[in-house]
Amino acid sequence: MHNPVVAIVGATGAVGVEFLRCLEERKFPLGKLRLLASARSAGKTMTFKGEEITVEELTEDSFDGVDIALFSAGGGISRKYAPAAVKAGAVVIDNSSAFRMDPDVPLVIPEVNPEAAQANKGIIANPNCTTAITPLWPIHKKNHVKRLIASTYQSASGAGHSAMEELRESTRATLEGRDYRHSVLPHPYAFNLFSHNSPMDAESGYNEEELKMPREMHKIFKDPDIRVAATCVRVPVLRAHAEALTVEFENPITPDEVREILSTAPGVKVVDDREKNYFPMPKDSTGQGDILVGRIRYDTSDPSGKSIMMFVSGDQLLKGAALNAVQIAELLVTDAADKKLDQAASA
Amino acid sequence: MHNPVVAIVGATGAVGVEFLRCLEERKFPLGKLRLLASARSAGKTMTFKGEEITVEELTEDSFDGVDIALFSAGGGISRKYAPAAVKAGAVVIDNSSAFRMDPDVPLVIPEVNPEAAQANKGIIANPNCTTAITPLWPIHKKNHVKRLIASTYQSASGAGHSAMEELRESTRATLEGRDYRHSVLPHPYAFNLFSHNSPMDAESGYNEEELKMPREMHKIFKDPDIRVAATCVRVPVLRAHAEALTVEFENPITPDEVREILSTAPGVKVVDDREKNYFPMPKDSTGQGDILVGRIRYDTSDPSGKSIMMFVSGDQLLKGAALNAVQIAELLVTDAADKKLDQAASA
Repeated sequence: MHNPVVAIVGATGAVGVEFLRCLEERKFPLGKLRLLASARSAGKTMTFKGEEITVEELTEDSFDGVDIALFSAGGGISRKYAPAAVKAGAVVIDNSSAFRMDPDVPLVIPEVNPEAAQANKGIIANPNCTTAITPLWPIHKKNHVKRLIASTYQSASGAGHSAMEELRESTRATLEGRDYRHSVLPHPYAFNLFSHNSPMDAESGYNEEELKMPREMHKIFKDPDIRVAATCVRVPVLRAHAEALTVEFENPITPDEVREILSTAPGVKVVDDREKNYFPMPKDSTGQGDILVGRIRYDTSDPSGKSIMMFVSGDQLLKGAALNAVQIAELLVTDAADKKLDQAASA
Repeated sequence: MHNPVVAIVGATGAVGVEFLRCLEERKFPLGKLRLLASARSAGKTMTFKGEEITVEELTEDSFDGVDIALFSAGGGISRKYAPAAVKAGAVVIDNSSAFRMDPDVPLVIPEVNPEAAQANKGIIANPNCTTAITPLWPIHKKNHVKRLIASTYQSASGAGHSAMEELRESTRATLEGRDYRHSVLPHPYAFNLFSHNSPMDAESGYNEEELKMPREMHKIFKDPDIRVAATCVRVPVLRAHAEALTVEFENPITPDEVREILSTAPGVKVVDDREKNYFPMPKDSTGQGDILVGRIRYDTSDPSGKSIMMFVSGDQLLKGAALNAVQIAELLVTDAADKKLDQAASA
């Protein structure tokens, strides 16, 4: 694929805006950019590389001539319009959970399983943010992850622009002593936190967000034996997530070994300054493509020497969404470029 | 002890104010109340049962005639003045960590080890908030806790009034687009979170707050075999803490059994509505003496059927500090009252 025509579905959303930023900042070799959104947003303009682009209404006929369609407008929109995009010849990179567990759809983190992207049948799924910012793959390759216990500290951005606005406005109201009626999230958000707002599986007592983590890790790592239990919590932070991880490996491993592996891993930055009490924080990971990792230490509740604790923070809108999707798009372009080079070399 | 004279050391602090409220609301059988604080606060007045009480400067001579001294002014003040209070004949109930690990000082949660309070030699220690709001004792009595992994979501109040003010003011500044120079906590707090601000043990990589949890649980539960690993995180919430707990028991146990045990435990309220997605939240536990517990479910990372996950929230200033201390004081008074009754009965 050379200089592809890229369409963004959900261009005006929290992730949509970051799609534009990532494409621009990473100098994505773009043929043309088209912005698609609901009728309500159609006609608005957005700036890309200094030029105004008008948002078009999303319809089933929107994908003529589109090579890559980046979807981030919720599972319903993906289910409805992704088939039309594929039919028109586009590769869909979908940020929703709609197709992630479909056996015909690769689920890709470019640092983990880039090869899976090439095997697509028209749709490639982007993992959930909580999975995308869990930087265990580089360690898993050397010493298999057997068990993961995760507690998340998830920001407002995961629930979109309107949730971020609700956090800001409800906090402002609280500080001014005014009442505020929340409408986006199910509980008051100002200076409060609550169990993740995704639907709860009444039988197991796990919510959808928590169930995504084992499913997606199993698929991306191609290892269904990893035992995962997550507690997902929405905290009053605007746009970067954090996670406290307890990870049991197959064999003994030291914190120093983990630190060394992660310090050279792509997309990961070790921030682990015990002396200065400086560790990963949403404030620092906001706007940053790398996942920050620190607090790397032995799990004192496991004397086997196989269990490590760490704390990570990653920008939900970037590595947890837009950046990962654009990195997948780059794989498609690079692959095509590589193939061309190969063909040229063998000609 | 009958109608004791109670002194509050650190009366104007975040916990001090709650001491007054707890004594008043619980109709503590008070002889007299004296308020002690630093020279800076001396002369201020505080209201108790509709009457103004003047704050006196804390000196070594402050404890003449005092029966019970409730300390919450930091470890340094406790180390300096608690001996003087004991010498003057008072029983000190200390909210700091100064004496918690002293083998001569009982560490008491009234719902767990009330008997320990009676064996005091002048000082009784109040546990750290994170330990006080972990409601595992009623389960432990039936099925021993073998391992605990805790991730905390700790509010500003644990760092005092000034930290709460810093959270409010820095958030206000952020919303108004103004700069704010933080001075109380080590990192920007508005819409951010960070690893707990207590000193870090450079060798183990655990901070003081995290190390308190195993130490205090071992002492209070009289069980040094419980293996504990905690990750303590400061979140932008004003005054109630939350904790995600993964608890491995000696024998298999079901979520229903845990729910049943906790539903009749004193000081605990089960809030576990999967249908309405309603679980413990700081908003609800603020101002409430009970610890809220929910999200009770199997730990899907442990197939043994012995491991349970739950999410708790408790008011850091109440059960995590002032309330627990006042409950200890009640044990002293009740005990004296009981003894008197016993003497009367045997006379």
